[in-house]
Amino acid sequence: MDKIRRNERMSAMMKILTASPNKIFTLSYFCDLFGAAKSTMSEDIDILRDVVSRFGLGELETVTGAAGGVRYRTKVRRPAARQFISGLCQQLSGSQRVLPGGFLYTSDVLADPEIVDRMGEIIATEYFATQPDFVLTMETKGIPVAFSTAQALGVPLVIARRKSKAYEGSEININYVSGSGTIGTMSLSRRAVKEGSRCLIVDDFLKGGGTAKGMVDLMREFGAEVVGMAFVMSTAKPLKKRISGEKSLMVLELDADAETAVVKPAFWLNGDT
Amino acid sequence: MDKIRRNERMSAMMKILTASPNKIFTLSYFCDLFGAAKSTMSEDIDILRDVVSRFGLGELETVTGAAGGVRYRTKVRRPAARQFISGLCQQLSGSQRVLPGGFLYTSDVLADPEIVDRMGEIIATEYFATQPDFVLTMETKGIPVAFSTAQALGVPLVIARRKSKAYEGSEININYVSGSGTIGTMSLSRRAVKEGSRCLIVDDFLKGGGTAKGMVDLMREFGAEVVGMAFVMSTAKPLKKRISGEKSLMVLELDADAETAVVKPAFWLNGDT
Repeated sequence: MDKIRRNERMSAMMKILTASPNKIFTLSYFCDLFGAAKSTMSEDIDILRDVVSRFGLGELETVTGAAGGVRYRTKVRRPAARQFISGLCQQLSGSQRVLPGGFLYTSDVLADPEIVDRMGEIIATEYFATQPDFVLTMETKGIPVAFSTAQALGVPLVIARRKSKAYEGSEININYVSGSGTIGTMSLSRRAVKEGSRCLIVDDFLKGGGTAKGMVDLMREFGAEVVGMAFVMSTAKPLKKRISGEKSLMVLELDADAETAVVKPAFWLNGDT
Repeated sequence: MDKIRRNERMSAMMKILTASPNKIFTLSYFCDLFGAAKSTMSEDIDILRDVVSRFGLGELETVTGAAGGVRYRTKVRRPAARQFISGLCQQLSGSQRVLPGGFLYTSDVLADPEIVDRMGEIIATEYFATQPDFVLTMETKGIPVAFSTAQALGVPLVIARRKSKAYEGSEININYVSGSGTIGTMSLSRRAVKEGSRCLIVDDFLKGGGTAKGMVDLMREFGAEVVGMAFVMSTAKPLKKRISGEKSLMVLELDADAETAVVKPAFWLNGDT
């Protein structure tokens, strides 16, 4: 193989690191891949760290110790997050998307990779520090965002179901009070969650919080710890939810006639960091 | 801003291009971003194309014409795809994952970002040429893989539901014969699909093909063209499915007692390209 130049090494490293967020790559891995000395790789990584930071592409972190190396983390600063979410709010506001019964049509936005990936990055940025072992969502509409968050965190996704499924094996079922006041069942394979693991709940919509409360109860049954809850959108009313401590990206207000939607970025996005 | 060096430009470009597969970035976009001349950017891109190819990281393609520029495409060569799928087959084979009723537990694998992303890249590699406008899946287990495929293709995902939902607005419903022989209903918002658009169907499991046939029928109702069908796993029996022309990544065989699963890579992965 021809000698590999710095610009070639750095570009390849960028792709490899950013394709597996939060995964630690050892220096030796890159030394072997490029046939370069450790000192050379360290220099490469130093320059790469500056590039990532300078162009707002995330964060490159050096991890010391026996299992040390370098890892990439997505990082969306609050002003950039707020700008993106504001644009999305404009797209969702108005009367075009309001459906009979006061519902808002969001299925397209919640399955568009470019939008969903950005939302996943914003949520992951907020919850890296809580070190979740997995992301939990309840089927169906929130799955892409939850998956995208799991990608950015480098952890598995776990999907709770509305019904028992033969192909999930032995399950734990719990009942919960859904938004409409009816009792629903939530079901999850016993194999899906390890006792003592750390769970980040991600879902598309928060109204009364019944479903979210169900997920919290479900995790208690598994002996897992809920370290955070994030939602794409929450309703302004009721103000008091069945859960607390969550972060939503957007807040939905409907006028009295339920004909016009006003969607606003959440307050916590007003930060500088 | 300090002058930006080639290795810095190339690394940043790599991240930007690979984060939005199949999206065309104009040369001017990068010229503005880096304050560099077009000739310089062309040289950068030439080197970057070689790096991407040399390290098996995908494909960089120059698009000529008025809407021209450069785009990144994921590309998994058949030998690499086969190697990855073979490893996955080993993980899924045996008796550990076989459930009562002859089902196979795959929910963890189907929601693990590292595995799912690779499967999405393999499927996208096969179907780039068919130029799908969107990916269609049926809830629930196939959503992550379908979303990952949509990410790699740079197109939206559309999710068909098992029930009408008030928040989907006006819908088209069709009936289909599910695997167990019962009649199911499949539902999709009228807003979700444009007439004349091109659809790639992606789902997790293919047995008799009833659900897949339902999705094909559904697309006919929308006046959309199905350009391809891909599944994570199909069963060896029945050999004859209700659909044809699909590609599955793996084939599942259960022994007579339904106690041991044998999972094999699909034949079409035996290529060289």
